[in-house]
Amino acid sequence: METIVQKYGGSSLAEDEQLRAVAERVAQCHRDGNRVVVVVSARGNTTSRLLSYAGKVNSNPDNRELDMLLASGEQLSASLLSITLQDMDIRSVALTGPQAGVLTCDSHLNARISTVDPRRMNRYLDEGAVVVVAGFQGETPDGDITTLGRGGSDTTAVAIAAGVKADRCEIYSDVDGVYTADPRVVPDAVRMNVISLPEMKTMAHHGAGVLNERAIDYALEQDVTIHARKAHGDGGETILSPEGGAGKARIVGVAGHDELLCVKFDESADADRLRAELDDYQFFVPEMAEGDSGICMIPRDQVPDPDGLAGDIRKEFPQGVEVSGSLATVSAVGYEAGKDDSIREAAVAMLAEKNIEVADIMVFEHAVTCMVDSKDFAAATRCFHDGFRIVNKEVADVA
Amino acid sequence: METIVQKYGGSSLAEDEQLRAVAERVAQCHRDGNRVVVVVSARGNTTSRLLSYAGKVNSNPDNRELDMLLASGEQLSASLLSITLQDMDIRSVALTGPQAGVLTCDSHLNARISTVDPRRMNRYLDEGAVVVVAGFQGETPDGDITTLGRGGSDTTAVAIAAGVKADRCEIYSDVDGVYTADPRVVPDAVRMNVISLPEMKTMAHHGAGVLNERAIDYALEQDVTIHARKAHGDGGETILSPEGGAGKARIVGVAGHDELLCVKFDESADADRLRAELDDYQFFVPEMAEGDSGICMIPRDQVPDPDGLAGDIRKEFPQGVEVSGSLATVSAVGYEAGKDDSIREAAVAMLAEKNIEVADIMVFEHAVTCMVDSKDFAAATRCFHDGFRIVNKEVADVA
Repeated sequence: METIVQKYGGSSLAEDEQLRAVAERVAQCHRDGNRVVVVVSARGNTTSRLLSYAGKVNSNPDNRELDMLLASGEQLSASLLSITLQDMDIRSVALTGPQAGVLTCDSHLNARISTVDPRRMNRYLDEGAVVVVAGFQGETPDGDITTLGRGGSDTTAVAIAAGVKADRCEIYSDVDGVYTADPRVVPDAVRMNVISLPEMKTMAHHGAGVLNERAIDYALEQDVTIHARKAHGDGGETILSPEGGAGKARIVGVAGHDELLCVKFDESADADRLRAELDDYQFFVPEMAEGDSGICMIPRDQVPDPDGLAGDIRKEFPQGVEVSGSLATVSAVGYEAGKDDSIREAAVAMLAEKNIEVADIMVFEHAVTCMVDSKDFAAATRCFHDGFRIVNKEVADVA
Repeated sequence: METIVQKYGGSSLAEDEQLRAVAERVAQCHRDGNRVVVVVSARGNTTSRLLSYAGKVNSNPDNRELDMLLASGEQLSASLLSITLQDMDIRSVALTGPQAGVLTCDSHLNARISTVDPRRMNRYLDEGAVVVVAGFQGETPDGDITTLGRGGSDTTAVAIAAGVKADRCEIYSDVDGVYTADPRVVPDAVRMNVISLPEMKTMAHHGAGVLNERAIDYALEQDVTIHARKAHGDGGETILSPEGGAGKARIVGVAGHDELLCVKFDESADADRLRAELDDYQFFVPEMAEGDSGICMIPRDQVPDPDGLAGDIRKEFPQGVEVSGSLATVSAVGYEAGKDDSIREAAVAMLAEKNIEVADIMVFEHAVTCMVDSKDFAAATRCFHDGFRIVNKEVADVA
């Protein structure tokens, strides 16, 4: 008998038929004799709808109250999935995040899980029930409701998997796993059978979607293996394994940020204040902003109003700060890729051969990143994917 | 500085303008220097919508999960009202029922409040914040979410008023108070300035809407004075006072149940099983079902499917049980009205004068009730209202 945590995203639960299909998958896993915990997000566009309710009555609502509002969305989908399971004669108990024992810090809208107390979940699992948990939410030590930010239900699933000592953590979404590059940019990208968590974290940090970084951090910290799968229809999976990489200096995938907001500053800028201001937005390469001068890059798609933000920065920092938006990055990701000079050299040579100008090159532990003009983003991505010959088979063979 | 509990029903919060108008009323009360707790129901038809979601996936969902589903509706309206108050620069904290310290029994969908722990609310009130509480919900000692059934938010408001030792408990709804009779039946019915809680409980038990019986029980038990008011627009109020009546043997109002399901049984019926079966539905005159034979009356509007229920009873009790549905009751309510024979005599005489046949007459502590044919319901109600000369002025003068 295995203990399995399954997580389903909101778009996989939007329609009633999807809800039923998800319940059927959960029911099968339970009938197969497993102990099953299911973590769910809010259905469809519920979260946006709730945010728009709040926006109509207050343009700057308190984060604490927003959390209470948003958490109701996952509460709804957890209870509904449990009700659907009961209709299939599966014993099922729904729990809010706080009821499931998910304790967090008090940073509302973007809380971190501190601990998961698994006792209540274990009690129901011991009784043979499926436990359905509202993802994306937890409780502060003071008993306030928190939410975990972007991709928070992934983090819930991983933290719960660690808490109940699960044998598997399956994360279901619209895609059947992690691809060697974004298939919309690189049509011959293939799904990986396996990727290491340090590599996946680097992929995510450098622009790949699929799973959020914090969930990966949890998985690394708690030694949780993740199976990334598609919620509906058949498909394979990618196993995200805590163990090392597919091999030193082997590139496993290409990630990238198109459309970056670049904030350059020199010695005349109030760098400390700028850094404080940008702290929330430094999703990418904050390392470059350490000195008295430097550059911060903010992916446009990770800011609600990037042009507004650019205007604000220009207004607040009239001295020594320059904001522009025509750059992109392309990263070749592989375990300890940054430690092998030949990868950096190959990257530069490949792009030069395609007449793609490299504005800068950055080396990270598990990636080599080239900064290029936005217009060259797709070409540079394909060039890396092709040049480093990233194929599923190779990766699978090594794993 | 007074401590005031205000409760707003779901239909008073349905539209955004209503939400804002309610917030404005709360804000004014707070600006006037009061400590304010607001109890809210789910907005508009939220509860029905949530129930219909559940109904689509399971025709017989578990009550525990339904409670978790339904409670999300009040959580939403509490956080939204708090967010609206914050937009008016009022410091405000929203709490779910469990966070507000509302502890209940574990009878899901129809739980009773056992205690209210006021500490958390008091802490916020001491800090000068408005506290907005999700009504209709609480928590079992095991940490499960419960809901309190029909009119549950009224009960929450009264229980919280007792918990925080409020000076006033104001219950806002679509009507501006309690009328001497249903104005749809008796056009010259007038609003009472004051009614005693024992009389109000009798009015509610015998068919008057406005406030649910359990909330009145709480108010009586905890010595809470209730001000029943209209949420929007101007209007007066009715004060529901724990103290005695307006005067012995004075009729203060007329209530009634049109369209009753009558279940008559004789000695050949399995009375114990029937009584157990009907226990959930005995909203009215359960006293008549004590012996080996008797009659139970179930107001049709308090059962989701009265004809279905009638069919079920006929099927399950083929012996000695008769179900019919053409009777109504009309009750003259007044403090200790049942102790004065002249009231019973007057009631019978009045109806006789109008040629209304009385099938039965029942005497209760605070009411005299006549059973009539459904077709005579309106006429009998008007006859009582007119005959007992029930006018606001008289009642107000005595109070």
